[in-house]
Amino acid sequence: MLAVLRLGHRVSRDKRITTHVFLTARAFGADKGYLSGEKDDSAISNIQDISKRWGGEFEVEYIDDWKNFLTRLGSTVVHLTMYGIPVGDKISEIRKHKDILVVVGGEKVPTEVYQLADFNVSVTNQPHSEVAALAIFLDRYFEGKELDRNFPDAKQRIIPSDKGKRFG
Amino acid sequence: MLAVLRLGHRVSRDKRITTHVFLTARAFGADKGYLSGEKDDSAISNIQDISKRWGGEFEVEYIDDWKNFLTRLGSTVVHLTMYGIPVGDKISEIRKHKDILVVVGGEKVPTEVYQLADFNVSVTNQPHSEVAALAIFLDRYFEGKELDRNFPDAKQRIIPSDKGKRFG
Repeated sequence: MLAVLRLGHRVSRDKRITTHVFLTARAFGADKGYLSGEKDDSAISNIQDISKRWGGEFEVEYIDDWKNFLTRLGSTVVHLTMYGIPVGDKISEIRKHKDILVVVGGEKVPTEVYQLADFNVSVTNQPHSEVAALAIFLDRYFEGKELDRNFPDAKQRIIPSDKGKRFG
Repeated sequence: MLAVLRLGHRVSRDKRITTHVFLTARAFGADKGYLSGEKDDSAISNIQDISKRWGGEFEVEYIDDWKNFLTRLGSTVVHLTMYGIPVGDKISEIRKHKDILVVVGGEKVPTEVYQLADFNVSVTNQPHSEVAALAIFLDRYFEGKELDRNFPDAKQRIIPSDKGKRFG
């Protein structure tokens, strides 16, 4: 079980980035998403609509109290942060754990997240994007196999094409 | 030389995603960015500010006529699209080319882009994020070495840390 928690969501500012975080989580093999910060039913239902159309069972649940949630869930917490230890140095150790919660912050991440996390992991120590960091983390965790994942019960599928768009 | 062209930028809707695209391009080893669509000086200067502070020479240039630009530049054009051929099937061939322009679309990509591209490449055939697709493409292109890249003349550096934030 691998889940992704998006912290500190703000409806007005983060809607698209948060949507990209969850679509990336889904496409790259995460089992479930959790949203924390401001409640955002439309962001959540956008993801459910994608899951319905493109297959699989990924869904997003709103979490009111992330601190309580982190401890209650009992998963190994991997916090993605530009301040952390390079992912390549930690991934073998992380992969030994069965239940993983990947925590993806927004602009300002409370200090407690760094303390509560079992691993603070960086994808480069440069400022870039939580979407890119999540993609690379999941890629390392699933060893590239996530790119060939099959999504059951899809209503829509793409047939890879050299030019243009083909549906299957 | 590897550059990234962001197509169809809309100031009101895309500012943050476009910024994430370029920050990811920079952090993952691209040499230069090009912005097309609506002109957006503040998005461009945000990136220059990051480069000044965190090192390296990455900058973004606005392109008025992307069609003319694509042909004039003479680089091998790699268009990232969920409809394309899986990146794993094409990356060895792409890596033989010296000058690469990676094209990252927005919501609606004109059909001509698929035709003008030398390679239409997918990072999964699922809907997710141009930021995630770019991250994985650059990771495959640079074979993971981009994560250890050094940025010269940085005013600010991070020392990777197990807990909290350390600057060096």
